[in-house]
Amino acid sequence: MKPFMDKNFLLNSKTAEALFNQCKDMPIVDYHCHLIPQEIAENKQFTNITDLALRGDHYKWRLMRASGVDEKFITGNGTDEEKFYHWCATIENCIGSPVYHWTHLEMQRYFDYDKPITKDMASKIYDHCNAIINRGDFSAWSIFKKFNVAQIGTTDDPIDDLKYHKQMAEHRAKDASLPLVQPTLRPSNIMNIESPDFIKYIGKLENASGFAIESWRDLQNSLNNRINFFHEMDCRCSDIALDPPVFVPVASEEAVDSILKKAFNGHALNPIEVNQYKTALMLWLGEAFHAKGWVMQLHMGAQRSNNTRMVQKLGADTGYDSMSDETFSSPLAKILDALEAKNALPKTILYGLNPTSDAMLATMIGNFQGNGIKGRMQWGSAWWFNDTKIGMQKHMVTLAECGVLSRFIGMLTDSRSFMSYPRHEYFRRILAQLIAGWVDNGEFPNDTEKLNQIMGDICYRNAVEYFGLEI
Amino acid sequence: MKPFMDKNFLLNSKTAEALFNQCKDMPIVDYHCHLIPQEIAENKQFTNITDLALRGDHYKWRLMRASGVDEKFITGNGTDEEKFYHWCATIENCIGSPVYHWTHLEMQRYFDYDKPITKDMASKIYDHCNAIINRGDFSAWSIFKKFNVAQIGTTDDPIDDLKYHKQMAEHRAKDASLPLVQPTLRPSNIMNIESPDFIKYIGKLENASGFAIESWRDLQNSLNNRINFFHEMDCRCSDIALDPPVFVPVASEEAVDSILKKAFNGHALNPIEVNQYKTALMLWLGEAFHAKGWVMQLHMGAQRSNNTRMVQKLGADTGYDSMSDETFSSPLAKILDALEAKNALPKTILYGLNPTSDAMLATMIGNFQGNGIKGRMQWGSAWWFNDTKIGMQKHMVTLAECGVLSRFIGMLTDSRSFMSYPRHEYFRRILAQLIAGWVDNGEFPNDTEKLNQIMGDICYRNAVEYFGLEI
Amino acid sequence: MKPFMDKNFLLNSKTAEALFNQCKDMPIVDYHCHLIPQEIAENKQFTNITDLALRGDHYKWRLMRASGVDEKFITGNGTDEEKFYHWCATIENCIGSPVYHWTHLEMQRYFDYDKPITKDMASKIYDHCNAIINRGDFSAWSIFKKFNVAQIGTTDDPIDDLKYHKQMAEHRAKDASLPLVQPTLRPSNIMNIESPDFIKYIGKLENASGFAIESWRDLQNSLNNRINFFHEMDCRCSDIALDPPVFVPVASEEAVDSILKKAFNGHALNPIEVNQYKTALMLWLGEAFHAKGWVMQLHMGAQRSNNTRMVQKLGADTGYDSMSDETFSSPLAKILDALEAKNALPKTILYGLNPTSDAMLATMIGNFQGNGIKGRMQWGSAWWFNDTKIGMQKHMVTLAECGVLSRFIGMLTDSRSFMSYPRHEYFRRILAQLIAGWVDNGEFPNDTEKLNQIMGDICYRNAVEYFGLEI
Repeated sequence: MKPFMDKNFLLNSKTAEALFNQCKDMPIVDYHCHLIPQEIAENKQFTNITDLALRGDHYKWRLMRASGVDEKFITGNGTDEEKFYHWCATIENCIGSPVYHWTHLEMQRYFDYDKPITKDMASKIYDHCNAIINRGDFSAWSIFKKFNVAQIGTTDDPIDDLKYHKQMAEHRAKDASLPLVQPTLRPSNIMNIESPDFIKYIGKLENASGFAIESWRDLQNSLNNRINFFHEMDCRCSDIALDPPVFVPVASEEAVDSILKKAFNGHALNPIEVNQYKTALMLWLGEAFHAKGWVMQLHMGAQRSNNTRMVQKLGADTGYDSMSDETFSSPLAKILDALEAKNALPKTILYGLNPTSDAMLATMIGNFQGNGIKGRMQWGSAWWFNDTKIGMQKHMVTLAECGVLSRFIGMLTDSRSFMSYPRHEYFRRILAQLIAGWVDNGEFPNDTEKLNQIMGDICYRNAVEYFGLEI
Repeated sequence: MKPFMDKNFLLNSKTAEALFNQCKDMPIVDYHCHLIPQEIAENKQFTNITDLALRGDHYKWRLMRASGVDEKFITGNGTDEEKFYHWCATIENCIGSPVYHWTHLEMQRYFDYDKPITKDMASKIYDHCNAIINRGDFSAWSIFKKFNVAQIGTTDDPIDDLKYHKQMAEHRAKDASLPLVQPTLRPSNIMNIESPDFIKYIGKLENASGFAIESWRDLQNSLNNRINFFHEMDCRCSDIALDPPVFVPVASEEAVDSILKKAFNGHALNPIEVNQYKTALMLWLGEAFHAKGWVMQLHMGAQRSNNTRMVQKLGADTGYDSMSDETFSSPLAKILDALEAKNALPKTILYGLNPTSDAMLATMIGNFQGNGIKGRMQWGSAWWFNDTKIGMQKHMVTLAECGVLSRFIGMLTDSRSFMSYPRHEYFRRILAQLIAGWVDNGEFPNDTEKLNQIMGDICYRNAVEYFGLEI
Repeated sequence: MKPFMDKNFLLNSKTAEALFNQCKDMPIVDYHCHLIPQEIAENKQFTNITDLALRGDHYKWRLMRASGVDEKFITGNGTDEEKFYHWCATIENCIGSPVYHWTHLEMQRYFDYDKPITKDMASKIYDHCNAIINRGDFSAWSIFKKFNVAQIGTTDDPIDDLKYHKQMAEHRAKDASLPLVQPTLRPSNIMNIESPDFIKYIGKLENASGFAIESWRDLQNSLNNRINFFHEMDCRCSDIALDPPVFVPVASEEAVDSILKKAFNGHALNPIEVNQYKTALMLWLGEAFHAKGWVMQLHMGAQRSNNTRMVQKLGADTGYDSMSDETFSSPLAKILDALEAKNALPKTILYGLNPTSDAMLATMIGNFQGNGIKGRMQWGSAWWFNDTKIGMQKHMVTLAECGVLSRFIGMLTDSRSFMSYPRHEYFRRILAQLIAGWVDNGEFPNDTEKLNQIMGDICYRNAVEYFGLEI
């Protein structure tokens, strides 16, 4: 029996240990997350361990709800100490959950606490962590430095003024050990023309752009305006949630213009019009990203805000999302094909939330590899509910069997929490064990140099090259 | 090499052995099966091993058909000894099949026969088993007692008079070592308004209810009547096959009434009307079950009676069913959401037949956990074709990674056979090995008390609490 | 650590070694591939290792594209030596890919080269292989004999004159050590009525049949003509790509006739007409195949030619295909059911490209097993992107759990390359390890005779019996 989560956690051979040790201290490129730029720029200090570890973390909230904890002690008006107690009482039973491992890695790496977390120890752990949090040298930036975070890609609306990114860039000019924090343009609000908030949102976009948006041409100008601004602010990456991808025969510019004006006038669009608009916008955006040399991220397969009662109470992104089983291989291929046909397909990362899309996506990227670009098309790291030990193993095995694992740009946290950096360590352990498994089983040569190259490429160097990072 | 199916079958470490041994003799709660209430109440005696082990068991029939056995020796007029011979000739080749293991466990546990089953031994085994079966002390009840069966949930049509449940309750009042046998209300015949047998069925429902059913209001009254009656008869659980789930915008009571009257008048309904009716009935039933504090079971993903020629010959449930790949995450979420919005969502168990729905269901339940109820939403145990070693492992790993495994209410047989109780043992072995694997690999602390608690909760206590059993 | 790809490659116990060694030299039945009949009949000689190993092999091309190799060195005007260099530079990084193993097995078995393939060794390997290729005794036939290939099923259009099959049969009459090469009728061009090339194709079919095709009756006569001709030429098998399967209520013969005449007159068909035609043709073909005693192969789940720009440049089957996620369990069942209802369902092999269809197909075949035929319905070996170590394991485990693995007709290459025969060895190793795993774990008796029978049946004898081969 192996000791509980010790230094060789998830490493089952000398080969695995050696591979992990060689890459464990490499810098972290966290190219897609949901940290709040203001908190980054202002070097957020934390009130206590509940503020740090539980605030906004719907992964943990879901476990508490399933365990029968009253909502009062999850998102309600329970005290922070009560909430932390209920969290400990929950997690001690979460055998087999990635969150069990994340939570223990958090305690080990942030707080040098390496015993099992239990409700009996809740009070002691609470005090222990808070003492460290309140010592004065504990903050967002100290976390970045401790974990050697080299780059952070935030997720930002086109209307954002990016002032916190600017502020952070100024800090970094003075302290080179701070990470490069880059915005990511996420134009989902522009895509969702059927949303009741669309017109209101366009108003905000007008403000951000500095001119009125009354036509498809105006919208394009506005998007160009925002893309140029984001590019000046170091953005090199976009992100769109396609829930689901749609593709219909491309409508004329005039037709799209009419559809958009109809929406601006408050008229309801029929599904064909919605899809014509979305197709046109998707292709326009793809072409624009390609012109800038940006990476395009497409997130697919989510079914969001399923519990209306609770979402009305707590808002979106509070733990009421799950997987869609809607099919999308055909429209997705057509989107990519239409861009490729114009020589305008950007480097693209495809993420699927339902593992039923795994093999489809792993083979889809192969259709659009080429142009002499290493790993031009990526199947993104196991996302959200798949960001688990088995989920990551399956993702990487499928990628290795259907594509080229060694060109994979690796892990990202996609997280809203400053506590998530040990998930890169978790990933590196799983990757080391996977590769070592092949070597130990005689399936790949025991060539240390080659193995270290592959590990280091996936853990760090591929992402640096892919995003053209200067770090 | 481990010995063939010995006491440590499927247990690969001391940890696994200890976990299994600690829970192996716990009572069995078999909360969903298809045993015939009359045979339970009348303490069924068996003619011979063919009668006991092969009658009605389409799992075994499918293996025989795939092995080239003539239908005469499966469901035809072959003798029982011939049928048993062909079964042995079949099973000896079924390497890797759960039925291989079930069959050997049956022989070991019911008949103390622990050698491999082969066609060469068929005649000897036939005689050996029949000697035991005909000894006089072998019957349905002796099986229940031998396997420590504490509760059995049968599956019953709303029109059933439940007289055998009543009879069994009277027997149990005299002999407390008999299991609690509870009916489960399965209103599928009321759901299937498009069936040619719908009107005929409603006639039977009228007889059962004691009044005419001429309107949506009458149908509700009739259902209330049956639900109240079932509740008096200890029913605490319902079951609906949604092949597939449908949800359309909720029609008015008047509209549903019109649709139903149209059907009563023998007019064909269009698909929209069918779906409006099904949506309305599903929501009405959910609310009614919630009001009674019942558990709601939803079975999804089956594609039934695919071989018309054989189903016409042998009837339904004779081995011609398989998996549907139809998608249903959206209507399922909407059904649950509509009930939750009214604070009328019962405790619910979701079962999917196609493993493509696994991760979707594992995350879907998370959307509706809460209200301070432990494991309020359940993703049901690996069902039917998934009720295999790998199927159960995948179910429990996915549940552990996407939810809270330790709140799982565990195994049920879903069986038509009195021979199925060793499948609980099979489940407990797989669970013990799974949990031990995590502990042995340093992924969970080796805390015996905690581990035994989790094992016992999943094997027995969670189900007792979930169904509110008084046993 | 096991040595890299030595004689015990993928075999992890004495049991596995013994099982593999007992079947490794059995003849190969490669009942479905895409070798070019002319190259077979004319005993193709190879220019060099690039000609042999890379020409036409889009599995390898896809890896090169994903690795950033310029298309010039893949399908362009780079020299053969340059192309081989870039292949070596690619494959050395393809850890976890089946192509990594295939390529090394090719080098080991064809060229006695057993070191890792790397770009540094590319030049030496190139020379080493070419020396052997040009020695004079290296050719298609020498490969067949070296690998003990007993039967090859090519894939042939109904219009083919099969002259190379005739020629090869004559060679075999003189040299019995040559394989039996049988055509497979693939009427996909007749199915694809919506294709712009349909009318042109029908013209070719008229030429092949020797009479005009102006009606549904004429088309049936033409198909009968071709089926009879193929049957005389030893064809016993058909193959249809259903992308996807469609089934609509069967139209009258007159209606199908009208649809076909409409198409012949160059009018566009609506989707209902297309589906009525496809349903009618599919059922007609199934019945015709059944009448001849042929096997019917159905390939499903592909989404082909996704990259229009590259397919226009390089043609179909050049590496731009991937998986569809379209659902098809319902129409597939209805096709099979309609044939079964007429007692006209041939022996059938179902192949699915998207692993999401695995369990569905594994259970679908069970609906139509019977008639006293061993393994009448087959779920075909892990196809194309699934033809990997994990893909084959999953296929066989799922088949074992949902059906009867021991009746499986085993491996086929589906390949366009003469280099693919070691993939049968790869399959046999994986099968041996799988079965040994069960035995070593006490899940199946260690009965050498029974185990060798199962191994030999799956590797060779089941296919011989299923296809009625006289070899």
